[in-house]
Amino acid sequence: MTKRVIPLRKFIKPSFESLIEKKRDGGEFNQDEIRYIIDSTLDGEMPKHQLSALLMAIYFANMSAQETAELTEEMMISGEVIDLSEIAKPKIDKYSTGGVGDKTSLVLVPLAMAAGVVVPMMCGVEHDYIISSLDKLSAIPGFKAKLSNDQFAAQLAKINGAICAQNEDLAPADAKLYALRKETGTIPSLPLITGSVLSKKLAEGAEGLVIDVKWGNGSFIKDLEQAKQLARSMTRVGRSMKRRCVALVTDMNQPLGDSVGTALELKEAIALLKGEGPEDMKELVLKLGMEIVRLAGVAGSTLSAKQTVQRHLTDGTALEKLKELVKMQGGDPAYIDHPEKFPQAKHVRKLPAPKRGYVHTISAAMISQGVHLLGGGRDAHGKIDYAVGVSEIKKVGTQVKQGEPLMMIHYNDESKLEHALNFFKDAYRLAPKRPTPPPLVVERVA
Amino acid sequence: MTKRVIPLRKFIKPSFESLIEKKRDGGEFNQDEIRYIIDSTLDGEMPKHQLSALLMAIYFANMSAQETAELTEEMMISGEVIDLSEIAKPKIDKYSTGGVGDKTSLVLVPLAMAAGVVVPMMCGVEHDYIISSLDKLSAIPGFKAKLSNDQFAAQLAKINGAICAQNEDLAPADAKLYALRKETGTIPSLPLITGSVLSKKLAEGAEGLVIDVKWGNGSFIKDLEQAKQLARSMTRVGRSMKRRCVALVTDMNQPLGDSVGTALELKEAIALLKGEGPEDMKELVLKLGMEIVRLAGVAGSTLSAKQTVQRHLTDGTALEKLKELVKMQGGDPAYIDHPEKFPQAKHVRKLPAPKRGYVHTISAAMISQGVHLLGGGRDAHGKIDYAVGVSEIKKVGTQVKQGEPLMMIHYNDESKLEHALNFFKDAYRLAPKRPTPPPLVVERVA
Repeated sequence: MTKRVIPLRKFIKPSFESLIEKKRDGGEFNQDEIRYIIDSTLDGEMPKHQLSALLMAIYFANMSAQETAELTEEMMISGEVIDLSEIAKPKIDKYSTGGVGDKTSLVLVPLAMAAGVVVPMMCGVEHDYIISSLDKLSAIPGFKAKLSNDQFAAQLAKINGAICAQNEDLAPADAKLYALRKETGTIPSLPLITGSVLSKKLAEGAEGLVIDVKWGNGSFIKDLEQAKQLARSMTRVGRSMKRRCVALVTDMNQPLGDSVGTALELKEAIALLKGEGPEDMKELVLKLGMEIVRLAGVAGSTLSAKQTVQRHLTDGTALEKLKELVKMQGGDPAYIDHPEKFPQAKHVRKLPAPKRGYVHTISAAMISQGVHLLGGGRDAHGKIDYAVGVSEIKKVGTQVKQGEPLMMIHYNDESKLEHALNFFKDAYRLAPKRPTPPPLVVERVA
Repeated sequence: MTKRVIPLRKFIKPSFESLIEKKRDGGEFNQDEIRYIIDSTLDGEMPKHQLSALLMAIYFANMSAQETAELTEEMMISGEVIDLSEIAKPKIDKYSTGGVGDKTSLVLVPLAMAAGVVVPMMCGVEHDYIISSLDKLSAIPGFKAKLSNDQFAAQLAKINGAICAQNEDLAPADAKLYALRKETGTIPSLPLITGSVLSKKLAEGAEGLVIDVKWGNGSFIKDLEQAKQLARSMTRVGRSMKRRCVALVTDMNQPLGDSVGTALELKEAIALLKGEGPEDMKELVLKLGMEIVRLAGVAGSTLSAKQTVQRHLTDGTALEKLKELVKMQGGDPAYIDHPEKFPQAKHVRKLPAPKRGYVHTISAAMISQGVHLLGGGRDAHGKIDYAVGVSEIKKVGTQVKQGEPLMMIHYNDESKLEHALNFFKDAYRLAPKRPTPPPLVVERVA
């Protein structure tokens, strides 16, 4: 674990006002100025109101690639940087901007571990309506989300992977900035997103990073062009910090896979680890998995990468790795072998198609909100009802007859159903003609 | 004095984040939202960091004319609004965005008073490098800058005019916003400037306002187009609040008149009140004076307005009014009759022209900074050396021989001279060809 060391330099501290004015007028900060801003954020020297004005100025006036890279680096070294250099194997992490029904990490981490790649994954607090990988694993009795840095490093050395909660000693400047950004309308700024995500991810000790930037109604990035820009911003900054980076821009205009909800998604992930499961999830796991093994250098060609991924998904080695991970973090691996042990909802009912036609669009955001209304997201006490959710989701392009189920709704509390049902109904648009489903992977940025 | 009364309405308070996001995304606030923002500023309900982010969002995303008018009104009624309706005479105020060497208010207020116009002038805290009219008057022994609202109204009824310090009960929301704006780089926002200035000015009880918007190197508005926009914004908002408003956009690319410094400017103002003084000041006093008497309705035609202004400047009635004003506010009027009583600097020396040629440009900002270095502005203890300054300023377009004085420097402290001298030297650019001096009044906005 490396602690930040700041070389002494001649730097005359500017006033915070003058820094705000510089950015407001389109100026570019140099490294000293960015370091000063991050230091002053960390020690509270820069008052919150001035920092907030600066964040809004950054939102409007943006930051150059160079500034974004320096911001990310200064945020990263604002806290501990985990040193995994004693582990000789390639160390690759994966990050997703977050999607509805996305269970790829639960598949990709054990898959990479099986392929001999070390995956040091820490999960931060997710957006309101996303169920994180860590939330899902927490449905397994005994599973511990918190690991000390030493436990983390030891587990990586032993079994190649860990999925645990973000260590608060990593990039503490980000925690302070993020708290302000949430209250000041400055979340959706590309340089600030880049700095926030990469400062934490790169502090986890990985040499490379595969990024899944999602765009669409189920992502916080609604605009494809913005998603592409974010992908470019992140890979560029990652490279400038000497990390191998690849980003895929992928579709989040409908839920991923067949199911949304903790236990239902865990079951789908286990199916995928047996080479089964829905086609879109299979494709995404394959594409992202290939990027991981190629970035790690365990597969050279595209063909060999594809074969590596497919082999570990069909020979049971990836599934075995998930069990190892769960067991090592205190969870009961029997749940992986017997997913029927996961809690099941008292009631299951269909959402009938109101007319015949083709599924034209599905609002992933509305599906997610509906599942939350059933209790599937964190409530005021932080509790999640693992059993509830939706399954057998009819995806965009599917032909349905009137009355045929668009999906199955799993619920425990009858009183919560009606409100949720409105969201599920509104989420679907049927049309008489077959639509062209949007491509799952829109762009690869390397 | 009217206290704010808020009618009850159905208004569901939005979150501060959502208000920030609305403005960030180019949305337009309705009256309820603006009222809520100002109320929350006043009672501290909206945290400073969120308010700062909102101010920066307004800086970038701007406000419509409607929003600006509502902002101004809500800021105005955030405190006391002086009611001068018992005074039957026309009540016109004058406002300038601030200029170097600008002593027009000292001439215009008594001039208007002499013409039968009531001028309820309160002066706020000025920009760092501007000596306010009130600062200048304070050089007269005994002069009181502070008047109670009752004293203010009584003086207006009796002698037609007052120049006093801003009452803190007027537009208190502005004081809070302005303090934040100074620290967050959000001073130069047209809607925020408009709201700040007019909320206070219109609370002083005037029915009309003549505004002098200065542009150039000696103004905080460096850009002519921006000055024109501000003039339009202010007159539009003034009108929408049922006040008669005229704005002149005037040049501030060189000091106004022949002198900069408290006593020197007072002497120049007294000369102007006798129909003497430098040409540019004479012109500005005439143009602004004509606007005041026309807005007040005491002169109908342009010709009659001009004659009214010129008469009061030559027949001594305006000068007499200045003496009345000074006396009524506790000052010694003998200083007006005998300006030689004002403190005089120990030393006077010339600034020699380094070569022959024409004065091409003069940086008003640098002249002002030089005068401040001599002690002519407020020091850390708020003290002003009234005697120091510069006089006999050679203006743009003047031909000079090498060694001929560009101006005379009045100073008390030899040790401060050298630093100031650098500013004075750097302020002047000489060129071999005669430049076209910029027009003094660029545009009239009514």
